[in-house]
Amino acid sequence: MDRNVWREPGIIELFSTSESPLNLDLIKGIGDDCAVIRPTTRDDFVVTSDMLVEDVHFDLAWHPPFSLGRKAMAVNISDIAAMGGTPRFAFLSIAIPPHVSQDWLFAFRDGIRSILAEFTIDLAGGDTVRGEKMTINVTLIGTVKENRALLRSGAGEGDLVYVSGNLGSAAAGLALCQNPEVRSKLADFLTAPFIKRHLDPLPDVTCGSLLAGSGCVTAMQDISDGLATDLAHLCSQSNVGAEIDSLKLPCHHDLETICDELGCLPEQLKIGGGEDYHLVFTVKAGRKKELERYLAERSGQRIFHVGMITAGSGVILLSDQGDKDISYQGYSHSGAI
Amino acid sequence: MDRNVWREPGIIELFSTSESPLNLDLIKGIGDDCAVIRPTTRDDFVVTSDMLVEDVHFDLAWHPPFSLGRKAMAVNISDIAAMGGTPRFAFLSIAIPPHVSQDWLFAFRDGIRSILAEFTIDLAGGDTVRGEKMTINVTLIGTVKENRALLRSGAGEGDLVYVSGNLGSAAAGLALCQNPEVRSKLADFLTAPFIKRHLDPLPDVTCGSLLAGSGCVTAMQDISDGLATDLAHLCSQSNVGAEIDSLKLPCHHDLETICDELGCLPEQLKIGGGEDYHLVFTVKAGRKKELERYLAERSGQRIFHVGMITAGSGVILLSDQGDKDISYQGYSHSGAI
Repeated sequence: MDRNVWREPGIIELFSTSESPLNLDLIKGIGDDCAVIRPTTRDDFVVTSDMLVEDVHFDLAWHPPFSLGRKAMAVNISDIAAMGGTPRFAFLSIAIPPHVSQDWLFAFRDGIRSILAEFTIDLAGGDTVRGEKMTINVTLIGTVKENRALLRSGAGEGDLVYVSGNLGSAAAGLALCQNPEVRSKLADFLTAPFIKRHLDPLPDVTCGSLLAGSGCVTAMQDISDGLATDLAHLCSQSNVGAEIDSLKLPCHHDLETICDELGCLPEQLKIGGGEDYHLVFTVKAGRKKELERYLAERSGQRIFHVGMITAGSGVILLSDQGDKDISYQGYSHSGAI
Repeated sequence: MDRNVWREPGIIELFSTSESPLNLDLIKGIGDDCAVIRPTTRDDFVVTSDMLVEDVHFDLAWHPPFSLGRKAMAVNISDIAAMGGTPRFAFLSIAIPPHVSQDWLFAFRDGIRSILAEFTIDLAGGDTVRGEKMTINVTLIGTVKENRALLRSGAGEGDLVYVSGNLGSAAAGLALCQNPEVRSKLADFLTAPFIKRHLDPLPDVTCGSLLAGSGCVTAMQDISDGLATDLAHLCSQSNVGAEIDSLKLPCHHDLETICDELGCLPEQLKIGGGEDYHLVFTVKAGRKKELERYLAERSGQRIFHVGMITAGSGVILLSDQGDKDISYQGYSHSGAI
């Protein structure tokens, strides 16, 4: 696209809207020096900020702009979910390179808008600048009932370890995008759920919020770098260890088929594959039944018991092949440092 | 620097501290999925986010890392000042290119730390990733007394226009950095204040806060893109125009000497030069004396009356050479879109 033909729009031109804010405590949104937020309850604020860089965190060769916009927001929404919070106000900064066309940018904007609407989030500010590589920074502010935010540091010996969804799907999807010759050999209905999880993951906000409300959960975080790494973080901050049962790790029923074609082991992706954006959390053993009843009565949200917190340190995988320490053997998003 | 020799530290390694937060309402800082902030007063929150890109917004050839760290934070602090707020919680994301050394990064970190300490701001979160160009995004959260935030939209016909400090200094400093042969002809004591204003501007937080507290100010914003552009924004959002008296625009007493050497007119820099990070604001005419007394009694903060709000639109510069419309003829930070 000829850069002389169009000028990159400012954040206010790209996203300005005559509609009222979705969150009534947003007194002033995009267009002034700052957004103004007026807390109307005694809720705590939870705040996260993540940067994604072209060719480091995403590949424009296969990532459509609409789902990239959704994903840039989703990875931050997932951090809010991991505290048990509700996402409310987003701030988006983008460095736009010359190779990005107006159509691409508008599709990216529409992706952002669609996920914001889905989660009742207002875009309250941000910045658009020139750059050589597409760089996206999102800061997201959410709220959580006072003193109910679930930290990584609350797990204790004997607690049960749970995850909130299938593991390894996003990693399988990434591998399929990276290997078009494998992908083309497989039927679309087989590959679609995995590719969708890589391109456009849906964070577990409702689940996180229910878990925070249950009072049964002792620690929680989201799975962005793979269970092996993220559970190791949780254990480290709680000064405990964990044992995970390889047979209990939930996965999509077609993961094995996909892995056969990719030439990798499902277990590798389940423990090491990042970006599934489900939750890993710990529950007091004596409250297992209470939590399961609580969730069943509300949303029917499924959770999966995968292991136990120990007095040791690190994450041990228990399997037929013997036990092994898998701490921090997760996926490194290429660029996450 | 050989990237095999050292690994870029995560935000937690770079900034981790055993010290308690400076702001007691920061319940959980760096190290979890989110920071947790517990509002303890009925203050409003003011939030801003800005992205700076290497070779677009700053030049590593002459920008020392320590002052670059300070400036990346200062441009956001200035946005909080422009609402009359107090900066409190910062979130820093940086994309670090291979050419950045460990020493450089630590000096940059120390610059960030120094300005945070100066303004009693906590670094509450962020992200470090790999990138090709140094890219810095800061999101800053501040507080302001309920309903006291000063927007751009409150100016009315007949209001007086003020600025809070010398204009054109940062632009002169940038020009000196870009023209080392001119710089080398001048004594350091002459060039130092200008170069300092470009490399390490100090935002007017105390002034902004006093102005918000005075009850006399109708609209305010900071001067990042030059008076001609920033006052035009304020006028546009207030549906008014402004007349500025060229003889009243304050500047450093050596600006003319520097401009003579640079071959430019002081007026150009005073109306068009960006990045001074002072404030432009409007005051009800009948409250001029009250405001001047209020400031004199408190900090002795100097402010400069430079013009008046009119019923028209756009910014008109009045001078001996005749009147001219200077709306939006300010500096475009190279990369600001």
